[in-house]
Amino acid sequence: MLDQVDLKKKLDRKTYKETAPALRLRLAELQREVKEAGMPVVVVFEGWETSGKGTVLNQLLQPLDPRGFRVENVGRPGEDERFRPFFWAFWRRTPANGRIAFFNRSWYRRVLDDRLTEALSPHRLDEAFQESLEFERQLAQEGALLVKFFLHISKKEQRKRLKALEAEEATSWRVTKEDWERHERYDEMAGYVEEMLLRTDRGEAPWTLVESHDREYAEVKILATLVKALEERLAALKADASGKKHLPDPVALSQEAPASVAEGDEADLSGGDVLRKEMDDVLRPTVLGRVDLSRDVSVEEYKKQLPRLQDRFREIQYALYRERIPVVVLFEGWDAAGKGGCIKRLTSRLDPRGYEVNPVAAPNDIERAHHYLWRFWTAFPKAGHVAIFDRSWYGRVLVERVEGFCSEDAWRRAYGEINEMENQWSRFGTVVIKFWLHIDREEQLRRFTERSETPEKMWKITEEDWRNREKWPLYEKAVEEMLWRTSTPCAPWTVVEANSKEYARIKVLKTVVAATEAALEGRRIPGGA
Amino acid sequence: MLDQVDLKKKLDRKTYKETAPALRLRLAELQREVKEAGMPVVVVFEGWETSGKGTVLNQLLQPLDPRGFRVENVGRPGEDERFRPFFWAFWRRTPANGRIAFFNRSWYRRVLDDRLTEALSPHRLDEAFQESLEFERQLAQEGALLVKFFLHISKKEQRKRLKALEAEEATSWRVTKEDWERHERYDEMAGYVEEMLLRTDRGEAPWTLVESHDREYAEVKILATLVKALEERLAALKADASGKKHLPDPVALSQEAPASVAEGDEADLSGGDVLRKEMDDVLRPTVLGRVDLSRDVSVEEYKKQLPRLQDRFREIQYALYRERIPVVVLFEGWDAAGKGGCIKRLTSRLDPRGYEVNPVAAPNDIERAHHYLWRFWTAFPKAGHVAIFDRSWYGRVLVERVEGFCSEDAWRRAYGEINEMENQWSRFGTVVIKFWLHIDREEQLRRFTERSETPEKMWKITEEDWRNREKWPLYEKAVEEMLWRTSTPCAPWTVVEANSKEYARIKVLKTVVAATEAALEGRRIPGGA
Repeated sequence: MLDQVDLKKKLDRKTYKETAPALRLRLAELQREVKEAGMPVVVVFEGWETSGKGTVLNQLLQPLDPRGFRVENVGRPGEDERFRPFFWAFWRRTPANGRIAFFNRSWYRRVLDDRLTEALSPHRLDEAFQESLEFERQLAQEGALLVKFFLHISKKEQRKRLKALEAEEATSWRVTKEDWERHERYDEMAGYVEEMLLRTDRGEAPWTLVESHDREYAEVKILATLVKALEERLAALKADASGKKHLPDPVALSQEAPASVAEGDEADLSGGDVLRKEMDDVLRPTVLGRVDLSRDVSVEEYKKQLPRLQDRFREIQYALYRERIPVVVLFEGWDAAGKGGCIKRLTSRLDPRGYEVNPVAAPNDIERAHHYLWRFWTAFPKAGHVAIFDRSWYGRVLVERVEGFCSEDAWRRAYGEINEMENQWSRFGTVVIKFWLHIDREEQLRRFTERSETPEKMWKITEEDWRNREKWPLYEKAVEEMLWRTSTPCAPWTVVEANSKEYARIKVLKTVVAATEAALEGRRIPGGA
Repeated sequence: MLDQVDLKKKLDRKTYKETAPALRLRLAELQREVKEAGMPVVVVFEGWETSGKGTVLNQLLQPLDPRGFRVENVGRPGEDERFRPFFWAFWRRTPANGRIAFFNRSWYRRVLDDRLTEALSPHRLDEAFQESLEFERQLAQEGALLVKFFLHISKKEQRKRLKALEAEEATSWRVTKEDWERHERYDEMAGYVEEMLLRTDRGEAPWTLVESHDREYAEVKILATLVKALEERLAALKADASGKKHLPDPVALSQEAPASVAEGDEADLSGGDVLRKEMDDVLRPTVLGRVDLSRDVSVEEYKKQLPRLQDRFREIQYALYRERIPVVVLFEGWDAAGKGGCIKRLTSRLDPRGYEVNPVAAPNDIERAHHYLWRFWTAFPKAGHVAIFDRSWYGRVLVERVEGFCSEDAWRRAYGEINEMENQWSRFGTVVIKFWLHIDREEQLRRFTERSETPEKMWKITEEDWRNREKWPLYEKAVEEMLWRTSTPCAPWTVVEANSKEYARIKVLKTVVAATEAALEGRRIPGGA
C-alpha cells in the first residue's frame, strides 16, 4: 500500500496560487453550511513526525470562523484518561451538531506509537481496532461526517527534516532523542501504519493518504478532500430532505466520461469546473506515471534466463505440492499487454497435474445468478496446486466500473470485499501473486495495428478492443485506484513494465519464483518482489 | 442472554392447528415470490444436540417446491475442504438467485463444537468471527436474505431426550459416547453459544433463538419468523422497485400504537390480521411473565439484613477505591417501581466522596446536540468510583422507542451500540450492574392512587405518568426485547421483583455486593447474581 504511493507529487506555484485561495474560501462557506445543517464533523490528522501536521492544520484553520470549530490535541493520557475506558477521552471531545472537531493525533495513537513501546497481544490489538471501528461507526450512524488524513513522508525525507530542524538554533530543541529513536524504527512503524490504514478504512470513515514531501501539494490535497467530502455530504442531506435519491445511478456514471473522448482531448471547462477538475488531478494518485516502460532485456539474456527460471519454478512446484501450499497467480493488464504470452512461459514446463489456468470472461448464466465472487471462490486451488487467472475478480473495479455494469456503490464496496477474500486465503497459507501488465498507449496502438494487419493474429483484435482503447483515461483512473486500494501486505500488486514482452515475461517468472520460495522458507515478502 | 430465555414456552393444540397450516401455505407462496424476485435466501439451523433441528427442518420443507431449495448438511470436513480456506466450502454452497439454501449446521461449527476439541487462541477466534461476519455481510450486500435459528433446550431437557433415545431400541444407536461427553460439557458450550449469538447477531443476518422444549412451539416460531422475514424483504424490494421508501417513519411508528388503547382492549382483527397477531405473540419472548412478584421479606428480616448489607457495601467501596475498579449501577423500571428508594438504601452509608448519582431526564439542549450516548460516556466514573444512574442510556430502546422520539432504525441499532459501549467499559475492568425494577399493573395503580391522595407525595405523580401507564403493553414489549438483547455476560440484567419494596431493596443490595465482591476477587459472575 505505502509502496504504491508517489511521494514525489508536487504542485507548481501557479496551480497552487490558483487553487488554494479558492478552496479556502469554499471551506469557509461550507463551515457555515455545516452549522446550518447541524451536522457534526470530525477531522483526524495522523502522520509521521515532521510530516507537517501542525503546519497544515494551522493553514486549514485560517479561513474558518473560530466559534465553529475546536482543535483537539491528543498527547499522552493524563490521570483522568488512564482511570477511564480508552474511548472516554474521545467521546468527551466529539463535536456538537454543526461544529467541527480537528483531532491533531487521535485514538489511533494506540495502534501506532503505542506499539513501539508496549507490545499488544494479537487479541488486544484486535480489540483496539474493533473499538475504533465501533466509535466511528456509532458517530457516523447518528449523522457525523468523518474525514481522516495520514500525512506520509519517506524515511529519507524524515531524516532530512530532523537534520534541518536540529541545524537551526531556533528549532533544534524540537528534536529529541526519542525522535531519532523513532526514526530508526521507521520501517517497523510503516508496517503498523499499513495495518491501520487497511483495517480502518471504512466507507463511513475513509482514510486519505497525503503525499507530504511538497507542503503546498499536501495543503491543497487536504483542502480539496475536505471540501469534496463536505460538499458531497451536504448535497446528500439536502437531497434526502427533498426526498430525492442522491446516489448517482450507473447510467449517470457511465455518462460521466463519454466514450468519444479522444486521446489527450479535454473539453473546455470554466469557473467552478476548473477548480473541480484540478482538484481531481490533485486527489488522484499516480502509480502508473512512475512506471519506467523503457525497461528491456537483451535477446541473449532472455534466452539464458527464461529456461533457468522455468526449471526453477518446476522444482518449486513439487515442493509446493509436498508442503500443501496453494498458489494463486492472477494477471490483469491493458488489452494486448501480453498476458497470454506471460502465462504460456510461466506454465510451459510445469507438471500439468498441479496447475490450472482459468480464463475469465464475462460471467455465464449460472455465474451471473450468484454472488460475483462465487465463481472465484469455487475455482480456488486445492492446497499444493497453482491456479492461474487470466483476468480475475478485479473485473468488478475495472471493466464493470468503467462500463457501468455495476452500481458505484457496488464497485466501491468491492475493494474491501476483495481484500477480505484475499486475506482469508492468505490466512490459510495461500501465496497470492497479482500482476498488472503495463504498456503505454502508443505501444498498444502498435500492437493493435499489427494484429489487424497480420492475418493469423486478426482474431485477436475486435471492435470492442478499439472501443475500450478510447476509454483509456477512465481505465487508467480505475487501475490507479485498484492498485492503491488492494495492494495489501498479504497480496501485493506487482506492476510489470511490459512494453518489452521479454522483459515482462522474465519479471513475472522472477516474481513468482521469489514469492513461492519465500513461502516455502516461511518468509513473507512484504510489498511483493 | 440464554438465562433470560423462557424455555417453558408452549403452544396449545388449538393455536397450533390454527396457525401452522396457514403459515406453511404462506411459506409456499413466498417461495414462488422469492424465485420471481430472484433473491437468494440462506437459512441457518444451529442448536443443541437433540434440540430437534432435523425434525423441524423436515417439517419446514414439506410445503416447499423441491426444485427451489437445497439442504446443505454440514458435517466434519473432508479432504476437499481441509485443503482449502475455511469459507470455500460455504461459498460453493451459496444459493443462486431465487433459490433457498437450508444449512443444517453451518460455518458456526468452528466457534461452537470445534472449541470443545481444539482450543483457539483469542486471536484465532477473533479471526473466525471476523470471517463469518465478512461472509454474511458480503452475501447480504449483494441482495441475499439471511435468517439464522438457534434451537435452545436446557441441560436437563437434553439429558431427558438422550435417555429417551437410548431407551428405545430403534433409536439407541443414535446416542454415542461422544454425545454424553458433550452433554457433560453443556455449561461450557453454553458460554460459546452466548458468545456466538452476541458477536454475530447483526442487522443483515440476525439470530432468532428458538425455545425448543415444545416442538410445536418451535415449529411455529420458525415458520412465523421465516414468513415474516421473507414478507418484509419482498415488500422492501417491491417498494424499492416502485421508488417508494419502505422504512416506516417515526410518526407512522408511534401511530402504530394509539395512546388511547385501554388495558386489555384489543381492536377487532380478522383474516390475515389474526395470523399476524398470533405470530407476534409467538415470536415474543416472555421474560417478565416468569417473574414471581409475590416474593417478599418480613419486616424483621428486612431490618436485620439491610444495615448489614449497607455496611458490607461501604467496606467494599473502600476496597474498590484501592483497587481502582470503576462501578456502574443503573436502574430502570416501571414508574413508581421504587427506584428512588432503592438508590437511597444503596448509597445511604457510602462515603460520599466515592459515588455519584446521575438522575437521567430528557436530554437538555447541549446533550441533544450530541450523540445520544455522549452524556453517558462523559458521566463515566473515575476508576475506583461508583456511578449510579437513575434511568439511563436504555431510554433509547424504552421511552424513545415507544413514544416515537427516534426512528425505528435508530432504536433497533441501539441494542448493538449499547452492548458495544458496555463491552468497552467491561474490558477496562468496570463492573456494570443493571436493574429492571418490576411491578405489576395493579401494584402501579395502587401506588399511583396513593400518591394522588397523599398530599406530600402528590408531586411525584403527573399526567404523564398516567399517559405512560396506558401504554403499558407497548412498554412491556420494549422491556422484554431490551432484557433479551442487552443481557450480556459482561453486563447482565437483574430483574428485581419489586411489588414488595423491602424485598427489592434487599435484592438490589445483595446483587451489588455479590458483583463487586466477585470483581475484587477477580471472579466474574456470569449471568449476574
